[in-house]
Amino acid sequence: MLPPPLTSPLPASTLQRYYAIRQFSERLCVPLELEDYGLQAMPDVSPPKWHLAHTTWFFETFLLEPHLPGYRLFHPQFGYLFNSYYETVGARHPRPQRGMISRPTVREIYQYRVHVDEAMVRLLEQRGDCPELSALIELGLHHEQQHQELLLMDTKFNFSVNPLLPAYQSAPVPPPREDLLEVNPYRVAAGLYEIGHGGKGFAFDNEGPRHQVFLQDYELDPYLVTNQAYLEFMQEGGYQRPELWLSEGWFILNQEGWSAPLYWHRQDQIWQVMTLMGLQRLHPQEPVCHLSYFEAEAFARWKGKRLPTEAEWEVVAQSQSLQGQFLDPSYPHPRQTGALYGSVWQWTQSPYSSYPGFQPVPGAVGEYNGKFMCNQFVLRGGCCVTPQGHIRSTYRNFFPPQARWQFGGLRLCRDAGSDPQV
Amino acid sequence: MLPPPLTSPLPASTLQRYYAIRQFSERLCVPLELEDYGLQAMPDVSPPKWHLAHTTWFFETFLLEPHLPGYRLFHPQFGYLFNSYYETVGARHPRPQRGMISRPTVREIYQYRVHVDEAMVRLLEQRGDCPELSALIELGLHHEQQHQELLLMDTKFNFSVNPLLPAYQSAPVPPPREDLLEVNPYRVAAGLYEIGHGGKGFAFDNEGPRHQVFLQDYELDPYLVTNQAYLEFMQEGGYQRPELWLSEGWFILNQEGWSAPLYWHRQDQIWQVMTLMGLQRLHPQEPVCHLSYFEAEAFARWKGKRLPTEAEWEVVAQSQSLQGQFLDPSYPHPRQTGALYGSVWQWTQSPYSSYPGFQPVPGAVGEYNGKFMCNQFVLRGGCCVTPQGHIRSTYRNFFPPQARWQFGGLRLCRDAGSDPQV
Amino acid sequence: MLPPPLTSPLPASTLQRYYAIRQFSERLCVPLELEDYGLQAMPDVSPPKWHLAHTTWFFETFLLEPHLPGYRLFHPQFGYLFNSYYETVGARHPRPQRGMISRPTVREIYQYRVHVDEAMVRLLEQRGDCPELSALIELGLHHEQQHQELLLMDTKFNFSVNPLLPAYQSAPVPPPREDLLEVNPYRVAAGLYEIGHGGKGFAFDNEGPRHQVFLQDYELDPYLVTNQAYLEFMQEGGYQRPELWLSEGWFILNQEGWSAPLYWHRQDQIWQVMTLMGLQRLHPQEPVCHLSYFEAEAFARWKGKRLPTEAEWEVVAQSQSLQGQFLDPSYPHPRQTGALYGSVWQWTQSPYSSYPGFQPVPGAVGEYNGKFMCNQFVLRGGCCVTPQGHIRSTYRNFFPPQARWQFGGLRLCRDAGSDPQV
Amino acid sequence: MLPPPLTSPLPASTLQRYYAIRQFSERLCVPLELEDYGLQAMPDVSPPKWHLAHTTWFFETFLLEPHLPGYRLFHPQFGYLFNSYYETVGARHPRPQRGMISRPTVREIYQYRVHVDEAMVRLLEQRGDCPELSALIELGLHHEQQHQELLLMDTKFNFSVNPLLPAYQSAPVPPPREDLLEVNPYRVAAGLYEIGHGGKGFAFDNEGPRHQVFLQDYELDPYLVTNQAYLEFMQEGGYQRPELWLSEGWFILNQEGWSAPLYWHRQDQIWQVMTLMGLQRLHPQEPVCHLSYFEAEAFARWKGKRLPTEAEWEVVAQSQSLQGQFLDPSYPHPRQTGALYGSVWQWTQSPYSSYPGFQPVPGAVGEYNGKFMCNQFVLRGGCCVTPQGHIRSTYRNFFPPQARWQFGGLRLCRDAGSDPQV
Repeated sequence: MLPPPLTSPLPASTLQRYYAIRQFSERLCVPLELEDYGLQAMPDVSPPKWHLAHTTWFFETFLLEPHLPGYRLFHPQFGYLFNSYYETVGARHPRPQRGMISRPTVREIYQYRVHVDEAMVRLLEQRGDCPELSALIELGLHHEQQHQELLLMDTKFNFSVNPLLPAYQSAPVPPPREDLLEVNPYRVAAGLYEIGHGGKGFAFDNEGPRHQVFLQDYELDPYLVTNQAYLEFMQEGGYQRPELWLSEGWFILNQEGWSAPLYWHRQDQIWQVMTLMGLQRLHPQEPVCHLSYFEAEAFARWKGKRLPTEAEWEVVAQSQSLQGQFLDPSYPHPRQTGALYGSVWQWTQSPYSSYPGFQPVPGAVGEYNGKFMCNQFVLRGGCCVTPQGHIRSTYRNFFPPQARWQFGGLRLCRDAGSDPQV
Repeated sequence: MLPPPLTSPLPASTLQRYYAIRQFSERLCVPLELEDYGLQAMPDVSPPKWHLAHTTWFFETFLLEPHLPGYRLFHPQFGYLFNSYYETVGARHPRPQRGMISRPTVREIYQYRVHVDEAMVRLLEQRGDCPELSALIELGLHHEQQHQELLLMDTKFNFSVNPLLPAYQSAPVPPPREDLLEVNPYRVAAGLYEIGHGGKGFAFDNEGPRHQVFLQDYELDPYLVTNQAYLEFMQEGGYQRPELWLSEGWFILNQEGWSAPLYWHRQDQIWQVMTLMGLQRLHPQEPVCHLSYFEAEAFARWKGKRLPTEAEWEVVAQSQSLQGQFLDPSYPHPRQTGALYGSVWQWTQSPYSSYPGFQPVPGAVGEYNGKFMCNQFVLRGGCCVTPQGHIRSTYRNFFPPQARWQFGGLRLCRDAGSDPQV
Repeated sequence: MLPPPLTSPLPASTLQRYYAIRQFSERLCVPLELEDYGLQAMPDVSPPKWHLAHTTWFFETFLLEPHLPGYRLFHPQFGYLFNSYYETVGARHPRPQRGMISRPTVREIYQYRVHVDEAMVRLLEQRGDCPELSALIELGLHHEQQHQELLLMDTKFNFSVNPLLPAYQSAPVPPPREDLLEVNPYRVAAGLYEIGHGGKGFAFDNEGPRHQVFLQDYELDPYLVTNQAYLEFMQEGGYQRPELWLSEGWFILNQEGWSAPLYWHRQDQIWQVMTLMGLQRLHPQEPVCHLSYFEAEAFARWKGKRLPTEAEWEVVAQSQSLQGQFLDPSYPHPRQTGALYGSVWQWTQSPYSSYPGFQPVPGAVGEYNGKFMCNQFVLRGGCCVTPQGHIRSTYRNFFPPQARWQFGGLRLCRDAGSDPQV
Repeated sequence: MLPPPLTSPLPASTLQRYYAIRQFSERLCVPLELEDYGLQAMPDVSPPKWHLAHTTWFFETFLLEPHLPGYRLFHPQFGYLFNSYYETVGARHPRPQRGMISRPTVREIYQYRVHVDEAMVRLLEQRGDCPELSALIELGLHHEQQHQELLLMDTKFNFSVNPLLPAYQSAPVPPPREDLLEVNPYRVAAGLYEIGHGGKGFAFDNEGPRHQVFLQDYELDPYLVTNQAYLEFMQEGGYQRPELWLSEGWFILNQEGWSAPLYWHRQDQIWQVMTLMGLQRLHPQEPVCHLSYFEAEAFARWKGKRLPTEAEWEVVAQSQSLQGQFLDPSYPHPRQTGALYGSVWQWTQSPYSSYPGFQPVPGAVGEYNGKFMCNQFVLRGGCCVTPQGHIRSTYRNFFPPQARWQFGGLRLCRDAGSDPQV
């Protein structure tokens, strides 16, 4: 089923950007079968259908209802069904039950999108120059981009529990293997630095305020850790040596029977990896991916290095161009590029906390970030399923330390002057 | 999506019966949206799609593979995906994961059915006169009829967890209310009786051997217990009085917060009931339905009567014609008919056990019944979603005592001569 | 700590019997360390201290409070702490928390027993000839005997989770090995028989009414199944063959990792068994013990025989003297004796249900048996920790099919005339 | 049972300190009944007996076995039973099973202590001047002091699940109510500060290295938050307003039904609090205690302030004398003193992480702190059950954010110059 086309006589800028991002969500669903739209293989993932509806609900709830006179709700219960976690907006459907909503049908969800998009055009025509609304629309579009990434992450996980291991798309020619050049690490000298968002462009509230931090001398690796390096860790007993692991990580490893990253399959002595293009042979030079924080941290300890703090990562990023492998639906799988950004989200050792002076936005949209500042770790840099234009040097992604279904890898760091133990 | 038509030049009898039953399964799916085929709202239910495939797998596995030379499996992994519980046939997909199989698609499942049906025609042409195969085909058809009932039971449950409470079909005009006539109970005098299947027609292995039992004087009520009677039980504190309940029932009642039968909703002081035709007002004279054994047994105790044993029920049934409300897709909801059979399955007080001299059939099909003889209770008589022709006086249905999603109700019994305490 | 002595000038009969049974409970605790009295290693077991208090609470609640004028409760909260499951008596402490009651101390529990025993003497002096009270006292004494058995069963389990595997008492000289003589089976011809309690002596309510049952020809083995026979079952893959098991049993076997009876340990190729006398070498001719119903039933199937029904067992028992190995604290471990009774409880294939015409006793003591008639199976015959004089041919013990910590074994049965398959 | 006295002819210093701390552990057990020594009311707490044995095992394992020639282990399985979490030392008894070890008895545990203490005297006589051993002994003594605090925390929790609410000791006269004086907050100006342990005295590895941090202007309250202030939070709907809570905190609040701090009981409109001296009336001016991080953080948000970071707390502490309410067995319950230290542990907003340059000690004792740096928050300052002399300005205590059984309260902080919203 093709997504319904959106056509409009309106001119550029916000409207064009609105259309482009909204249509891209639907573009990402083209390879799905209708049956795939409802899958929820664990409570943490949401069905594709739900992502399409929830992002639409955001515009309906925060833009249309309060700001478009005469706006008619598409359906009186969609507010209940498609609220994610905004407590102040009202009751909501339990998260683990999202996969049970066969009705509304996929067709009705697409009609919902059309209904809201048409109303958004009217709102933009009437109030397109209002800064408050523009800020909310911008937030809604960034929110939708986050769900574009989630839609692919979640689909990958949903497919992984099917014994047939379906592919989101047919496998392309594998990329030519790239040998890593010898490159110097990023070196930073001790001192006071500024991090955090402070400028004019869009950022989520959790990226600010801009503030000073004191850093000691350190070096950040020029490359992401590769599958090859991770295989060595495994071959040297990485998953059998408790002294390499955080206590909670060792507990989960044993409880879940972890012995390799998520999506790795060993068949006839050969490592394969389940990708959005189906089961593929593992490339040694690709960045290792789908690690939990615990695995990333244990690997770093084994290697005699450590994960960077998010401040260390950001200070390096301030000097780098915003390039790297981001979402290209024709190849949604990480490659080694040599850039600081992209390919895989990079675990940092920083627990996800508020910056000094942080204040959430008042009202329901203030429930966006601050209330998750507990038992999560920060990842930086974006990945191969992060939409183009959705990343910044100050961007703070976060996941619980045991989460593995996001595209999480790592880049090593060390105190400058110290000698690695390997 | 309409089910693919089956056409064949072959003549009547087994083939016609095969077609009729196979097509009826697909007919039952016509009201479903494609999105409904994959739902599994609890581990005990299976997606409609899975029922369609599993019944097909039965013919492929037990008829085509061993008996049709040159038969080509439709898909090498369907044996893994659609085996239900036949340990001796091989490994199988975990039951709670059946709702995660978005692929094969619904279309592919229908193609699977066509593939197997065409091969079954060839097998019938070649071996239609072989008694062993005929017996297996008959078993396969009765098996498919059981899954027709399950498909409706499960769909009802799947829909019940959706806040929109979708209807399987639009609501018909409610039936005229029928006042219950004064009718005498069924009375049986003490003595030795024979029960169990012993004749020539089809029966499942658990219905035999035919054997003698000694019964004391008893009376069986002429009517099923009504919603009205059950409401009185509720109004007199039925769900708050532990002395009426089995210990395990009282535990579950409190754990699950039971205060009414499954699917009952109270809105503005009025009892509604969720049916396959959507939310309907509760009819006082309809048979009460969707009770657990614990609720049926507590009701009987409160009423000063008791549940019949399955032998007591069967001895009465031997004198009654096989009439009652069975599956009519235009009204899949229980009505009071005055017949002994149909409308709702009737809980008995008999734990599901083997009859004296019982031997399971050798081989995998012997895993059909005997291995479940533990922690279940017998229900008798068929219900409003039991296919026509699928019921017998000796038929033994069984469910765990806490199960409520089957169409389970009750008919009271008493020792003759004793005085009811109410 | 020695139990406090009970002395009384009163003469024989009920009082002597009361003293004898009450003191025997305390006698059984002599080998315990004070620290053992509070153990509760799983929710199904109770601490020894709790058994001592609960049996005392029974006399206080059902005899002293209603019938002894001026009786002063020992402690106002003991009713809450030591009620087991009598819903109609009032709220009670949650069962899984029984091990957390360090206070009252063991000393206080013994004082509680003295307090109640002294009051019981007064009650007997005043009302010893009242039939109603005599019946309740008799019930209380049989109740206490049941808890004597439980106290030993539970202590065995409590000790089994301690890596030091403590012994309840030091190991005696092992008994001389007895070779089993060739003896004919018990044979019974088809016909109508009477079972159940109908006479004048004491029986629990669930043992009646006496009633007729029709039985077919059958043979009951003269010996209990031995460890030797069970080892053969294990060696022939008994725990790896799903076709031998009930579906629920196979599920639990895999979930729990069962590969031998409870308390068996294999060390250096030798089977040892944890007993109340510590770890002992397994005797091949001893009766196999600590089997679940699932294991007993699977063994019987493997052997080509079956478990008897409780009616079949009882009809044989009516012709046998009440002899066998019962509780002798100097050797609380099963031996093969050749008697029908004793050594190990014998699993029957009968689900625990009410007999025709069964009515529980009115009031709280009616909660004794009837409310457990669900998801349990009947065991017959008593065992090596059943107090002398506590068993009858009509006695019905019952446990859930997965329970293994009671002393459960089996004796095989077969339809007469059928040929065993082995 | 009185603890066995320790007498020795040896002179002062390390030996005296060793004796003093070891005897103090036993002194704390004097009020316990023998039955209390084995209690484990949840997996997070350990029985008093286990604390006595585990602290002894530490000396046996890390001092005596490797360093005292000819040392004989007290019991070969105590290493298995009393290892807490040292993976590199070997297998260990599962934590939730610690309450099941009735043997060894309490008497044997005290004998174990005597055995180890006598050997420690020999070791000190031989090697008392060895710096490496002195450091390990010092670690062992600080370790034992931590378990002294745990022993009281755990006993309080163990007693709280007993409906009798036993008291650890009889209630003293309540302290005179103290009105809080008007005092200025601690003010700190923005700038670079040093925190962390860098000197010569004892500290745990997680307290170092000393390092620079940049802080902005802030003010720290002069008083701990009182019960009175917390009651206002409750009265204004603190436990019903999701916008005040972290998402995970709101989830747990609802799951557990939190509506007040742990140990608070409302009886007849009056708040009581369960203490180590039994149930007491709540004092409004006492510091609020037994809060989770979630509750402390929600309270601060409601108050328009925030929790301090651990760096902010430590910078203030560097200028304060080490005074406050620490462990005095005659009054183990928090009071308001006006000191920065003591009374209740103060939750900070700092996730428990490593300081820059942190390296765990090599070997098993390195498993002490670093491996828990995940999903925990730092608390500072010591409390009314922290042994005298066991606290420092750099001391970092840590608990998961949902933990409430430690003596956790809070002191508020604010950005200087900002206006509180209340």
